[in-house]
Parts: sequence; structure tokens; C-alpha cells
Amino acid sequence: MEQFFYKQPVPIDFGYGKLRRLPEIMKQMNVNRGLLISAPSMVRAGIAQEVVEQSEGRIIGIFSDIQPNPTVANTDACAALLRDNACEFAIALGGGSVMDCAKAACFVAGTPYSASVFLSGERQIDKPGIPLIAVPTTSGTASEVTTASVLTDTDRDVKALLASDYLYPVYALVDPELTMSCPAQVTAASGLDVLAHSLEAFYGKKHQPLTDLAAERAASLVFRYLLIAYQEPDNKEARSKMSEASVTAGLAFNLTQTAAAHACSYPLTQDYGIPHGEACAFTLPSFWRINSTEGPEAERLQAFSKRLGFNDAFALADRIDQMKRVMQLRSTLEEAGIHADELDQLVSKSFAPNMNNNPVKITEERLKAIYHDLSADAKHSELQS
Amino acid sequence: MEQFFYKQPVPIDFGYGKLRRLPEIMKQMNVNRGLLISAPSMVRAGIAQEVVEQSEGRIIGIFSDIQPNPTVANTDACAALLRDNACEFAIALGGGSVMDCAKAACFVAGTPYSASVFLSGERQIDKPGIPLIAVPTTSGTASEVTTASVLTDTDRDVKALLASDYLYPVYALVDPELTMSCPAQVTAASGLDVLAHSLEAFYGKKHQPLTDLAAERAASLVFRYLLIAYQEPDNKEARSKMSEASVTAGLAFNLTQTAAAHACSYPLTQDYGIPHGEACAFTLPSFWRINSTEGPEAERLQAFSKRLGFNDAFALADRIDQMKRVMQLRSTLEEAGIHADELDQLVSKSFAPNMNNNPVKITEERLKAIYHDLSADAKHSELQS
Repeated sequence: MEQFFYKQPVPIDFGYGKLRRLPEIMKQMNVNRGLLISAPSMVRAGIAQEVVEQSEGRIIGIFSDIQPNPTVANTDACAALLRDNACEFAIALGGGSVMDCAKAACFVAGTPYSASVFLSGERQIDKPGIPLIAVPTTSGTASEVTTASVLTDTDRDVKALLASDYLYPVYALVDPELTMSCPAQVTAASGLDVLAHSLEAFYGKKHQPLTDLAAERAASLVFRYLLIAYQEPDNKEARSKMSEASVTAGLAFNLTQTAAAHACSYPLTQDYGIPHGEACAFTLPSFWRINSTEGPEAERLQAFSKRLGFNDAFALADRIDQMKRVMQLRSTLEEAGIHADELDQLVSKSFAPNMNNNPVKITEERLKAIYHDLSADAKHSELQS
Repeated sequence: MEQFFYKQPVPIDFGYGKLRRLPEIMKQMNVNRGLLISAPSMVRAGIAQEVVEQSEGRIIGIFSDIQPNPTVANTDACAALLRDNACEFAIALGGGSVMDCAKAACFVAGTPYSASVFLSGERQIDKPGIPLIAVPTTSGTASEVTTASVLTDTDRDVKALLASDYLYPVYALVDPELTMSCPAQVTAASGLDVLAHSLEAFYGKKHQPLTDLAAERAASLVFRYLLIAYQEPDNKEARSKMSEASVTAGLAFNLTQTAAAHACSYPLTQDYGIPHGEACAFTLPSFWRINSTEGPEAERLQAFSKRLGFNDAFALADRIDQMKRVMQLRSTLEEAGIHADELDQLVSKSFAPNMNNNPVKITEERLKAIYHDLSADAKHSELQS
């Protein structure tokens, strides 16, 4: 009998041009002293300053010293600014890195500690932080509706996940217009991150009826609109649908967590510099093929593939491979710069906890075989067969 | 371009037998002095007392003096008990009437007023009330996840809606086991209420992507499981799926509101004593036929019907009629006891605000024609044609 726990406390205010509603939202929330946490690119483009100017004095400053994989040092500096200025709210305007830093900083600001003690598990996130309005500028991480923040502690050379209900933003303002200027390769990688969130939420062990709905909807939007957004960056409809796909996938994987393709992505990003979404997509078709052939979810994945208009689950996986080729993303070990003699190490670094969330048990041996099949030779003979 | 605002702050803890988790939930919430608000039937069955006994002293009493269409007097009495006992939380264990009374009472308890001043609009619901854990015992109203409470002011002979974000329960504990003892006619009527919530959320003017998903899922569950739950009251799977359908439909119509079939139901209940769900189902097939033939949603309703396995939208509507016959619910004016000379009055009383939420504009003349088509003669010739 079905058992589930569903939760999604973040209201989602979605629409093209909705950023203009921000002053009204601050007014409704009756918040008067806040910090804008944003990306250097948003400052360079003048968008951050515009948001401050339109805030009628409610935003007292901008913090944008945030690296692509945000660090404990970034977070602590942001938290200090929030604390020193007695901010009663914050706004995060940016991609996943800005969101993750802002979510952690809003909590850390209410403590006398560095983010590092929470990242190490020495202390727990045990109370609400400063309320955060999240405004994503990419269609990918969906951090605006999740409990997660991924930070890097450079002192200890550790990249780890903070997760707590206290990290939920209080409001997600999703304006697809902000993604219009996304470079093609960011659109490609973050779009496939959305697909990975959707498919992994659907086959992940913790899937449940309401996350299944969201996952399927998000995946169908990615298959329909990602290539259009990639090829026609000014296509408002495609950008809007990809934003919708991103936040919808967030409703799913926030509760299910991700699975094998995400687990494999971490060393691919850390050791081979492959952007997160592209790294997730590197093994995503392989796991879709495995999970639709064996294990408890095989039938569900076949039915899912057919409902999305594919002949079968393999056709869905093939379509991901094809999208990767069109968007010039890496598909083979050679393209990724992975040498055969590095595979053992890559494999051994791929067993983050979400690997256990895959419906088919993946051993080190099996994962090595999966990677072997991603060599140019194997791919070539596969295409010929 | 798509614009929407989505919100669903109530966590949903769903599963057969989950009522047993209640003591643990109260403990986690750290609440120590609460009132159990329930139905006379739950007291008679001993379930209410059992909940109190297992609460480890956290529940200090039971209030169950609630009528089927809860009154202002019921609500005020419940609020007084909450106030006089300095309760810091409450639990609603019952059907829609218990929920509605409890939601309103939890707010009213924090004021010096009667519920009547909020119902009349003299005063606004402007702050959070006592936190309420909602435990539904029927699959129908989904009041556990909505902002709504419908109360009757017998002094002024008014039945009206209270709606506010402050009326959301803080927790929905949905245990299908509690619906196992539902009498067949309650299962039938409340099950069709779920279907009306789903279909009206789908075609209602305020529909949005995430409510569409929930509406379609809920409708497909009703078509698949309602007759089984009606015919085999002990069928755990059917009961569980109908509970899931109910709360899922709630996620949809809570944001979209209902439409024409609900607007028509109010005088059918008030003047002809037809239970709410049965009253909604009385005109539901008619509006589905109209909205799938003309107006802006016609194509979407056809596609929806086909995805659910029907040949077309009319086949879906016919299926509702058939389900009503199987479950011995009223389908004609004659069965409902509505005389031809009463139609003008019935029609004029049917224009609650949600009538405007129908995608096709309904005039008094048109509604009268719809009712004419529900006469036994018209139905008979329709079946012959």
C-alpha cells in the first residue's frame, strides 16, 4: 500500500517579466532591510543595481563575491555582511552557486559559527535563518525550491551537501526572462541537469505519486524545448518552458533525492572539470537503459518512455545521446579526457550516498563496465550493430 | 506566456495505518496541550477516545458537537473550548464538516469575536490561528490541504465560505484506513466530489500547469477506483487510491477554485437536501460536455479525455452518468424531486461566484436548458438517439 510524505513549502511565483514584481513582494512581506546576494555577471550586466534601485530603499547592499562552486569562505563573508548590517531578509539573484551560498549564509548569519562546522556535521542546522527570496537566473538547479546547499571547504578539500528544512527559501520568484542571456553551453548543461533531476526522481527508490507527476511533466518539457532553447536563445516560449521544467523537476528531486547519474557526476566535475549538468548527462542514458531493463522499476520506465512518445526506453536514452551530440557535449571517455588507466579511481570516487538510491544495485565492477561502454570504440561498434 | 502562482504549504503524511504516527507527530511538533475536534460518529466508534488515550496526555479533551453542515454556533462553542483551555494546538479528525468547523474555530479562538463577523465580511482573517493537524476520515473535501471553510449562520440563514491562507492546517495526516467504514452512499457522493474537484480544476479559468497535473492524476484514480471502493468497501487498495485522489485533487482546486457544477450544487443541497458530492455530480457531465464542445478549453478537454482512456470527452461524461446509475445516485430532475415550475428559482440561485470560473459563459437561459435536458423524458430520448 502506498506510503509517502510530501512537502513543498515554497510558494512559486512564475512568469516572464515577473522580476518587476519584486518591489511589491517585499512590500507585501513587510521587509525593510535586506541584502541582494548575486553573481558578478549580474553586477556587470547592471541587473543587480537595477533591482536595488527599484527596491525603494529596502535593499541596502549587494554581495557578489561568490565562486562557481561556492566556498565556505564566500558563505562566511556573506553571512558576516548580513549579520553586521542587521538584515531582516535577503534576495538571491543568480544560478545554483549564488542560491547555495545565499541559503547557507542566511542560516549561518544567525549563528556565531563558520559554515564549515555545519558542513563537517560538527553542528546541526537547527533553526530558521533570515528569510530568503530566491530568484534563479538559470534553468537547472531548482535550488529555489529545495532544502539543499552544496558548499566547498577549500581548507579541508571537501565538497559537501547541507540539507535542512530550514534552508528552504520563503519565496521562489521564477522569471524566465532572466535566462534569455544564458550562453548556449550553460543552457545545454543546465538543461540536461533538469532532465537528470526528472529521470532520477522518477526511478529513484524514494519516488512517490506526486513527485512522479512532477518528474514526468518536467522531462517531457525538456525533450520538447531544450534543443529549441539551445538553438534559438531568444525563443521566449522555449526559455519559459525550460524554466517551468526546472522548477517542476525541483518539486520532485527535492523529496526523492537524485541517484546514480548524479553520484557519478561528482568526480567528473571535480577531477575532469566537466560542468555539473553535462557530468550528470554523461552516464544518464546508461542508467536509464539499465534501470529500464532490469530491477523493480523496469516496467514503469518503459511505460514512462512510451507516454513521452518514444518507442521504448532505449529510444528515450538514444534521444539523450543525440541531444548531447547536437549540443556538442561530451559523450565518450576520450572526449571527456578520461584515460583507461584512470577508470578504477574514477569508479571508486563515484559512490556518494545517492548511488544507493538507484533501483538496480550498482557495483564497482558494473560501473567500470558502464564506463568501458562509453569509450569511443565501444560507442562506435554499438552504432554499427 | 505562462504565468502562475503555486502554493501548497501543508505537508502531507499519507499511508494506510498512519494514524498510529499521531503521538510521534505531536511529539516532534513539541505541542503539549490540545483539543481533539471530531464527529459524533468517531466518538461512538471509540476512535476519538483511542486517539486521546494514545496521546500521552497531550490531548486534554474532545469536542464533537458539530452538525453535518457546521454552524457558526458549533464553531463558536469549539473556539470557546480552545480558548478557555489555553490550547496550543488542535486535531481535526473527521469529514469535511469537522475540518471546516475546526479550521475556523482555531482562528476564532484567538479573537474575542463570533465566527459570524468573519462570515459576514465585517472582519477579516488577519493572523495565524492555533495550529491544526487535520486527519480526514472521508475521501472527498480535501479540506486538510485547502484554505477554505464553509459555515452556516443559522441566525441569518446564510451558508458562506471563509477562505484565507491563515486557515491552512499545519499538517495533513491522511490515513485511508479511516475511510474503510464509510457507508456506501457516502463513498459514492464524496468520491464524485473528488471527481468534480478534479474536472473543475482542470477546466476552470485559473488552472495552471501544476494544478493540471494534480487534477488529471486525481480524475484518473477516481475513474479507476471509485466503483471498486463502492462495491467492495473492504478493498484496501481502492480505499487508499481514493484517499490519494482526494488529497491530490485538493492540491489542484485549492488554487483554481471550483466552477459551474459546484455553483449549481449549492441550491441542490440547500433546497433539495442532495448531499454535496451528489449535488456536484448532478450537472458535472453536462458542463463537461459543454466545455469540451465550445469555448477556449474544448481541445484540452478532448485531449484529457483521451489520455484517460476514453474515446472522446462525451464518453468521459457518459461514464460519469453510468457511475451514478451504478451507485444509485440521482440523475434526473424527477429523481431529485425538482418540479418544472421550480426551475426558474433553482437557476437564479445557482450563480455563486465560481459560476464565472467556467470557461464557457453560462447564462440563466442556458442553465435552464441544461436542467431541461436532465428531465427523465429528455434523458430517455437522448439514450434512444
